[in-house]
Amino acid sequence: MKHISYIEDFKSWKEEFTFFIEISIRFSETDMFGHVNNVSPFIYFEEARTEYMKEKGLFTDLKNPTSVPVVADLQCDYHQQIYFGEKIKMYVKPNSIGKTSLDFHYMAINEAGAVCLTGRGRIVNVDPKTGSPTPLPKEATAVLVN
Amino acid sequence: MKHISYIEDFKSWKEEFTFFIEISIRFSETDMFGHVNNVSPFIYFEEARTEYMKEKGLFTDLKNPTSVPVVADLQCDYHQQIYFGEKIKMYVKPNSIGKTSLDFHYMAINEAGAVCLTGRGRIVNVDPKTGSPTPLPKEATAVLVN
Amino acid sequence: MKHISYIEDFKSWKEEFTFFIEISIRFSETDMFGHVNNVSPFIYFEEARTEYMKEKGLFTDLKNPTSVPVVADLQCDYHQQIYFGEKIKMYVKPNSIGKTSLDFHYMAINEAGAVCLTGRGRIVNVDPKTGSPTPLPKEATAVLVN
Amino acid sequence: MKHISYIEDFKSWKEEFTFFIEISIRFSETDMFGHVNNVSPFIYFEEARTEYMKEKGLFTDLKNPTSVPVVADLQCDYHQQIYFGEKIKMYVKPNSIGKTSLDFHYMAINEAGAVCLTGRGRIVNVDPKTGSPTPLPKEATAVLVN
Repeated sequence: MKHISYIEDFKSWKEEFTFFIEISIRFSETDMFGHVNNVSPFIYFEEARTEYMKEKGLFTDLKNPTSVPVVADLQCDYHQQIYFGEKIKMYVKPNSIGKTSLDFHYMAINEAGAVCLTGRGRIVNVDPKTGSPTPLPKEATAVLVN
Repeated sequence: MKHISYIEDFKSWKEEFTFFIEISIRFSETDMFGHVNNVSPFIYFEEARTEYMKEKGLFTDLKNPTSVPVVADLQCDYHQQIYFGEKIKMYVKPNSIGKTSLDFHYMAINEAGAVCLTGRGRIVNVDPKTGSPTPLPKEATAVLVN
Repeated sequence: MKHISYIEDFKSWKEEFTFFIEISIRFSETDMFGHVNNVSPFIYFEEARTEYMKEKGLFTDLKNPTSVPVVADLQCDYHQQIYFGEKIKMYVKPNSIGKTSLDFHYMAINEAGAVCLTGRGRIVNVDPKTGSPTPLPKEATAVLVN
Repeated sequence: MKHISYIEDFKSWKEEFTFFIEISIRFSETDMFGHVNNVSPFIYFEEARTEYMKEKGLFTDLKNPTSVPVVADLQCDYHQQIYFGEKIKMYVKPNSIGKTSLDFHYMAINEAGAVCLTGRGRIVNVDPKTGSPTPLPKEATAVLVN
């Protein structure tokens, strides 16, 4: 694995992931180069993140929320090309937690066991009325550090 | 042109279009067959429809709307394959207007002047509080029939 | 159920479906009206169709195919709004088979058991060298009528 | 502007951009939070990048290419929320050029003149027969450094 700025020790970084969703690559997610288009992994990251938060009981009131998780930045490294019909395991973990934001890390493993994607991105907890960052709910912090 | 259920006389149907937007086909809108994916034209239909409504001054209050245009059905006929890098003219017109709904028709012309897509779809005017159909605003009806 | 041109008798039409995939609605598939965007169902239709064909062993040689299934037309009726976090059963069946083309029909059922989407569309078997329709493989016809 | 790892001096970094495309935000690119979904900016990055390469006469043989530009990594910082109906100027520039790869940087400016997105990503020139990196065409290097 090449050096990636957000991964200090790859082995321990990889082992910290426990939550994943399985994703079947859709035909519409490919492009004319025959592989998965570079935009599609960010769809997978989001699905893993929202499923993770749902499982943890976070940000579940999406109709009248007191705060909403807004993406502040995202990045993705493409290690292996991915193709239509493949199934990948899309892992996500909270990597660090601040007062109003947290960092999610991402890793996708293909059926051959190879790491095909890694990534990370910061989510900021925003008050929808003011548009400003607001402290993460205490229960979120409690859940995420355990 | 093969027979299409929603087109009676193709020549006059085609001539009735006046409004169009120009669309540059994006790489991400292709698929591994090398052409534009079958999902993408519905993105183009929507963009043409929203630009048309914006130009006509309809449904412009998207933050606190008294009614919203909801898609009831859509269909698309693919006459010519479309490729990355092409520019198409995406036409839209209101074809018939009811009390609470209206039918938009669509036609895309490629740079060679060929009709590559045709389509149609009904939009229903919905009260966001009740979720039920509500009469189209009078100004909408006035604008659309002229 | 309102009258839909491609459904003669809704009860028997519905009962003919046996194959389905489960789809978890993604956040990125919603729009600012708070529901699933009108473009997204065509992504679901395609995924159901390709999974169906994979299960039946059809069109599996996607790298050097002798013929490819190209979408000739598509239509969708939106019966119920769909929301982020829902799981739907996306059904697909071949409804009629011609020499070079076939018609797929689609139906989505939400967790409450309601039909939220119906649709149909014709697929044409195309020779990638000529771009012209070519007879469906015999094994395809055999598989699809049974 | 907060500190961003790939920007040393923001003022000079910003002034180096000259090429841009104008993008009208599509309704389908929003999500249920009412703003542009976090996936959409990567669509804009790709469109800016391919338009830039087309203008420079690079990678134009997409049917039988001797080499293809493959995305190795991408990142995006979201500085301002973007909404349906906005028009943004999507800038792109080659920021550094290696033997087989190059780094593109990205910046989006909204109609109020605010920087709403910044980003970067490395493109590797790949031989489609071997899947391995191959030197950038000389004309590419010549064009890009000027």
